[in-house]
Amino acid sequence: MTVTSILNAMSSPDPGSARRRGGRRGGTADTRGDILRAAREQFAAGYEATSVRAVARGAGVDPSLIVQFFGGKEGLFKAVLDDAIRPAEGMTPVLAGGTGEIGPQLAAYFFGIWEDPVRRPPFQAMLVSAASNAAAAEVLREFVRDEVIARLSVAVGGGAGSELRAELAGSHLIGAALVRYVYRIPPLCDAPLEDVVGPVGRAIQGYLTGGVAAAER
Amino acid sequence: MTVTSILNAMSSPDPGSARRRGGRRGGTADTRGDILRAAREQFAAGYEATSVRAVARGAGVDPSLIVQFFGGKEGLFKAVLDDAIRPAEGMTPVLAGGTGEIGPQLAAYFFGIWEDPVRRPPFQAMLVSAASNAAAAEVLREFVRDEVIARLSVAVGGGAGSELRAELAGSHLIGAALVRYVYRIPPLCDAPLEDVVGPVGRAIQGYLTGGVAAAER
Repeated sequence: MTVTSILNAMSSPDPGSARRRGGRRGGTADTRGDILRAAREQFAAGYEATSVRAVARGAGVDPSLIVQFFGGKEGLFKAVLDDAIRPAEGMTPVLAGGTGEIGPQLAAYFFGIWEDPVRRPPFQAMLVSAASNAAAAEVLREFVRDEVIARLSVAVGGGAGSELRAELAGSHLIGAALVRYVYRIPPLCDAPLEDVVGPVGRAIQGYLTGGVAAAER
Repeated sequence: MTVTSILNAMSSPDPGSARRRGGRRGGTADTRGDILRAAREQFAAGYEATSVRAVARGAGVDPSLIVQFFGGKEGLFKAVLDDAIRPAEGMTPVLAGGTGEIGPQLAAYFFGIWEDPVRRPPFQAMLVSAASNAAAAEVLREFVRDEVIARLSVAVGGGAGSELRAELAGSHLIGAALVRYVYRIPPLCDAPLEDVVGPVGRAIQGYLTGGVAAAER
């Protein structure tokens, strides 16, 4: 799989649907989707700035419905993140490909989310909000633990150091994305995507497979 | 140089001085130092939350003196960062050691700042504030350009790709520090310092020297 094919496969299946305005849904069938779309738009302003009430207004539903569907603001944020990042859908093919190209494939999947104008805002909101908001930080911690470390550490052979190595790889992805898309520091923010995905992919490949032998002793 | 010796050499020369309270300075000789100490304490709450007026109150000086010394809030923030990170003092010995161990030495220098309770808060404030505040982001961009990329890219041989490689290395350091100290995600946040400095140092070594031959063609 090439970087481009992975990026294409990972892009939003229907970016237009995200531009639908809240409150205009036709029926109740997609109420959950309407809530998620309204939430995605509002969480882009940050976790703290978003309220269940405002999301309900945006989706044209009663706030109690959001509590019923998602449990509350934290659950809603998690659902928005899952919808944007789709960790199972995105990581399963990467992990199924064996570990030989896992670094580059994982980097391509990850930066594909950031390059997508629909999927990037909630991901960015999580990282920015988690730096200053305790509830958002807890969501991020759970997300990294359950979706990133749990999947990756098994893929790279398990063992004592595999969780730390998986998280170190993730920390590099996070840092590179922040510098490129949030802090916007040249030349990383202006470099062609391939010039970033390639080197970062090779760097995290070292974490994910370089130490497998040692961890398996 | 071992990781421990670098960390010791990099730690605050006089941590006690940071605990002096503003407004108690004995003379005018250390007015600049008093302002910096007051600013360091207040910037720890974030760039946006800090005002020149409040720093002046904390240092027991007239706000006009801060403008005279530092030009204003942005210049004051830069001075606090320089004082905390001391890029020239910290990076010169690392860079003078040749490129053979530049990755591990740079990682030890960088994490040494984060492990220091006096030097870490302004650094952390810069990264957290820059994610949501345009002025803080500009300070961070200038800092990375002038202090990190300019120094590192020359050290690793210059050439077309050397700035990007230097920044990719920096982005990994930033990501690892955020995950360990700000997001506090296990196991990276609980791991012994050496278990982080070692692997991260080797990973950025690849950026800094792995591609030198190609860049020098």
